[in-house]
Amino acid sequence: MATATSSTALNGHSKLDRSNLIPFSSRLKEGRALAQDVWSIYNAANLPADCINLGQGYMNFPPPQWVKDAAEEALASTIANHYSHPKGRIRLREAIRNFYSPSFNRTLDVESEIIVTSGANEGQYSVFAAFLEAGDEVIMFEPFFDQYLPSVTFNGGKPVYVPLHPVTDGSDPRSNNWKIDFDELRRAITPKAKMIIVNTPHNPVGKVFTRDELEKIAALAEEFNLLVMADEVYDCLVFDDKEHVRIATLPGMWDRTVTVLSAGKAFAATGWRVGWLIAPESIIKPTLAACTRIVFCTNSPLQEAAAAGLEQATERGFFKQQLKEYQDRRDVLLDAFTNLGLKYSHPEGSYFVLVDISKVDIPDDFPFPESVQGRGRDFKACWFIAMELGVSSIPVSEFYCQEHCSIGESFARFAFCKDIDTLRHASERLQGLSKYIK
Amino acid sequence: MATATSSTALNGHSKLDRSNLIPFSSRLKEGRALAQDVWSIYNAANLPADCINLGQGYMNFPPPQWVKDAAEEALASTIANHYSHPKGRIRLREAIRNFYSPSFNRTLDVESEIIVTSGANEGQYSVFAAFLEAGDEVIMFEPFFDQYLPSVTFNGGKPVYVPLHPVTDGSDPRSNNWKIDFDELRRAITPKAKMIIVNTPHNPVGKVFTRDELEKIAALAEEFNLLVMADEVYDCLVFDDKEHVRIATLPGMWDRTVTVLSAGKAFAATGWRVGWLIAPESIIKPTLAACTRIVFCTNSPLQEAAAAGLEQATERGFFKQQLKEYQDRRDVLLDAFTNLGLKYSHPEGSYFVLVDISKVDIPDDFPFPESVQGRGRDFKACWFIAMELGVSSIPVSEFYCQEHCSIGESFARFAFCKDIDTLRHASERLQGLSKYIK
Repeated sequence: MATATSSTALNGHSKLDRSNLIPFSSRLKEGRALAQDVWSIYNAANLPADCINLGQGYMNFPPPQWVKDAAEEALASTIANHYSHPKGRIRLREAIRNFYSPSFNRTLDVESEIIVTSGANEGQYSVFAAFLEAGDEVIMFEPFFDQYLPSVTFNGGKPVYVPLHPVTDGSDPRSNNWKIDFDELRRAITPKAKMIIVNTPHNPVGKVFTRDELEKIAALAEEFNLLVMADEVYDCLVFDDKEHVRIATLPGMWDRTVTVLSAGKAFAATGWRVGWLIAPESIIKPTLAACTRIVFCTNSPLQEAAAAGLEQATERGFFKQQLKEYQDRRDVLLDAFTNLGLKYSHPEGSYFVLVDISKVDIPDDFPFPESVQGRGRDFKACWFIAMELGVSSIPVSEFYCQEHCSIGESFARFAFCKDIDTLRHASERLQGLSKYIK
Repeated sequence: MATATSSTALNGHSKLDRSNLIPFSSRLKEGRALAQDVWSIYNAANLPADCINLGQGYMNFPPPQWVKDAAEEALASTIANHYSHPKGRIRLREAIRNFYSPSFNRTLDVESEIIVTSGANEGQYSVFAAFLEAGDEVIMFEPFFDQYLPSVTFNGGKPVYVPLHPVTDGSDPRSNNWKIDFDELRRAITPKAKMIIVNTPHNPVGKVFTRDELEKIAALAEEFNLLVMADEVYDCLVFDDKEHVRIATLPGMWDRTVTVLSAGKAFAATGWRVGWLIAPESIIKPTLAACTRIVFCTNSPLQEAAAAGLEQATERGFFKQQLKEYQDRRDVLLDAFTNLGLKYSHPEGSYFVLVDISKVDIPDDFPFPESVQGRGRDFKACWFIAMELGVSSIPVSEFYCQEHCSIGESFARFAFCKDIDTLRHASERLQGLSKYIK
């Protein structure tokens, strides 16, 4: 029966543009999946050779030697070079249980409440794959971590955006001045709403959500039966003794919350691709099924290293020391913007600062590349600062939907996950901005 | 408006079974995604402590020291502990280009024709995510690598099964006696067909598809405009000077073929989760978009190690030596079955042998666990052999759809990716089967 079409199809092909024979899935037509992303525009390859990279959120220092030692021990074995259990290596799951149980106010079960994922990113993707039905809505606060959007749309979900509103009435706006309008949030919850993402400490705003805010979000999650994805990958970077509340620990919330965590952020090892999820069995079981299909398991040697990290961190005072170092780095960078008289969101957590670049007067005749033309004013500002002063940053309108991107256009994101000398050097260079400030 | 439902919903929740508050996605209801898989039934934890594991396909020996050395060098750096480009590290992409270009009869382009994936498994998943539309059909030969099925259904695809038929008329059936019925294959191709998976060397059959077979598959792929996924992860394990043909190199096939390869299989490092895809830009570009969302990037230190592996393998004569060792391992195991008078599929490639267990007389009163009850006869045979003789294997009906699983019921899969002493020991134990052979 199929034979009849044979020669026609074959002849047809010889005349076709062979570069586009097999159409790709419509899921790539949404969620900016094929668009040039902000990371490739502001990539080091496009910028001056000596440009200081405060754009991308990875460290210019290595993981601690004692953590790397455990990776080397694993490499020296046989078994830790082979498949791990899809749930993750038992040593790491036990280390996660021991390290995190106190902050979750419960003894986590290593078999049913923890899975190791191939980075926090793949962990999040697995949750979306496990829970989203076509058309399900996922609420995310803007600005949002840019991977959320395509990860949701790839799995048939529909993003619903609720902006955080910067309150700029104070002379020293702090990051908790990015406020949720709870009426606006409630209005955004339709009968199709399935999930809400709560990223605290927040990338890129640096906001640490208050207990009061989280209680209000929790009440809405209960009222509308939402699954809560608590993206807490920066949980070890909360400054100034600010309280970091895990939404999973609020009354009734354990049952509907999956908390996302990351060895990359905790141990300065963004390239290790080891993360973990903590949730009740009802969430872990479907997510494990997804994760097992997507990656089967996570790389073994670096799981062993992450385990050693969690096992020894407290005794070594590691997170306390690391936090102090990040706080010093932050303060060096903030001083630079204070000196310039530029407003910024004072980061309570994470390693990002949003700088209000409205007052930077960008020369009209500056040569901008095509990739920046037609985008928000922040795209031009970031390009100008990188080319003129040699410090790269990321435009914040990228982290907004089209409708709300004017909010982001006022800001550039600078990362301070760099050693203090690099940040001092960057700060000196940034003083050159003074002559462009209105 | 939503306020009205508030108290009702909240009151309702307090009476609900909280373990099932958030329904998981319907995509988990297909493709056996939540079923107990064969790997957990025949897991070491369920078997005698000293059972020799020939069930799972991972090595009981480590990767070569000179490959691991490169992982240690990477760990000692800063940059190779941080994010890689989503395409993969340039050193590895260049090593892939240099190593594989000759066998693809073209100079591969590192920017557009190669991507590194988090294991071959995630590479395959990304291709399905990038190309499948809801309802698209994916043709796979049975027995099939069990991950194909849920990876397809997770992305909305529908598996279509075409059995390889074992021809058992010879006294020494060799694995190329597993034949494709090309009329049956043609009948399986409907207008919804989008992809065909060609796994050569084949897991679990050990078959290396002949040039003639691949040409016939290629002709059908052209005729019906199918994307071909060439799963060639065992390409460095082709025995007895058998020709291994890459379907991508057949006339007209480059444009529609993605070839899947694996550092884990090549360098005895199944736990490193490093694989790569080779394809034209029209296939790589959408797949990269998918892969970037799913995992963002692959772990960096072990990419560096895989690069060193490919860079030095030829000069060191590594693959030649490794092949010889696998051939010796295979022959030890085959001798054991020859001595027992059991038929088997003589593996031309991969590290699996299918043994015909029809003649094994399984005692009716043997205590079988619930997980094995109601499954094919092969499930009982594998359980019996593991418990009675202390050698584990995997039942082959697991790799068939329900309709065709009776074909698989005659076979158990034994893996010979173990050191030769272990295989000798297993072979001795297996001789105990003689008294159960009819």
